[in-house]
Amino acid sequence: MKNPWKQLSRKTIYTGFLGHKVHIDKVIGPSGKESEYFVVGLKDDATILAITIDNKIVMEKTWRYPIEKESLELPVGGIEEGETPLEGAKRELMEETGYSGGEWVSMGVNYMNNGFCSAKSNMFLARNVIAGKAENSDENEKIEVVLMDFGELKQMIMDGKIDDSRTVMAVLLASRYL
Amino acid sequence: MKNPWKQLSRKTIYTGFLGHKVHIDKVIGPSGKESEYFVVGLKDDATILAITIDNKIVMEKTWRYPIEKESLELPVGGIEEGETPLEGAKRELMEETGYSGGEWVSMGVNYMNNGFCSAKSNMFLARNVIAGKAENSDENEKIEVVLMDFGELKQMIMDGKIDDSRTVMAVLLASRYL
Repeated sequence: MKNPWKQLSRKTIYTGFLGHKVHIDKVIGPSGKESEYFVVGLKDDATILAITIDNKIVMEKTWRYPIEKESLELPVGGIEEGETPLEGAKRELMEETGYSGGEWVSMGVNYMNNGFCSAKSNMFLARNVIAGKAENSDENEKIEVVLMDFGELKQMIMDGKIDDSRTVMAVLLASRYL
Repeated sequence: MKNPWKQLSRKTIYTGFLGHKVHIDKVIGPSGKESEYFVVGLKDDATILAITIDNKIVMEKTWRYPIEKESLELPVGGIEEGETPLEGAKRELMEETGYSGGEWVSMGVNYMNNGFCSAKSNMFLARNVIAGKAENSDENEKIEVVLMDFGELKQMIMDGKIDDSRTVMAVLLASRYL
């Protein structure tokens, strides 16, 4: 398919301290008429499905402000300038949970909201990670580490008790390895 | 977990014609310090994994402007004011693909980006849908309907050829029915 969109202009109306940007583009789309397109830009991130040497998945319990509820999910973190996705993934897992080491496999890249957001998540599987001390530098993240079986994690998704897109996607992608 | 966030104020800096809103909140988070929280609000939507009477999945090929590429994905559409998620799902499937009828099951609700976006997708499975004439009222959507086997869809996800979060989540959730 040929790109049916033409960008005429871009105005950035917001830049947040975490790197979020809000762009309002003037475009000509498939209709042939000029219209507005709202685009959110933010850092790409890494989602990590890490399995301990005891065969437990490393999960995080945290409160998600935008949806006003607690969420149980896989570790996820933004990839910083100058880092590869794998480097960012290893750093985030260590900072947020204290786990490190192990054998890492890339499970591909997914878009959470391709209708308005350009960011993607790099999905990793890490096997045989080893416990250590978390050193979370973000004092606005309150995280509780929870270990669980892969079967239990999958069941919680099926039961609607886990509803975070990155976690659900990683579980499907990991199923061929586990 | 108790909600560690306190909202002090909300300023809405953008409202788009499709219902997107950008809010900049002043908050006190887990750190105890005042900071800014960026929240995007938009309509909840419905994602539909529809299977024809010939056992094919109804997919859509479309160009996604924010990520600058073609995307093969399940039908998805916003739920309008006054509609239930199921009503919105049936209307969207009909408008975008022409398929209707069949037996519908709710597969739960998922959040695409719970770190900055409050919207959720209502996931549906529809079996034995019947072909008809699409009547897409959105002239800025250019959609090509593609039919494929469930196994082929799953393989394309595993191979990284399908990377849309709603599609990947629906495939995992549907696996217990198919």
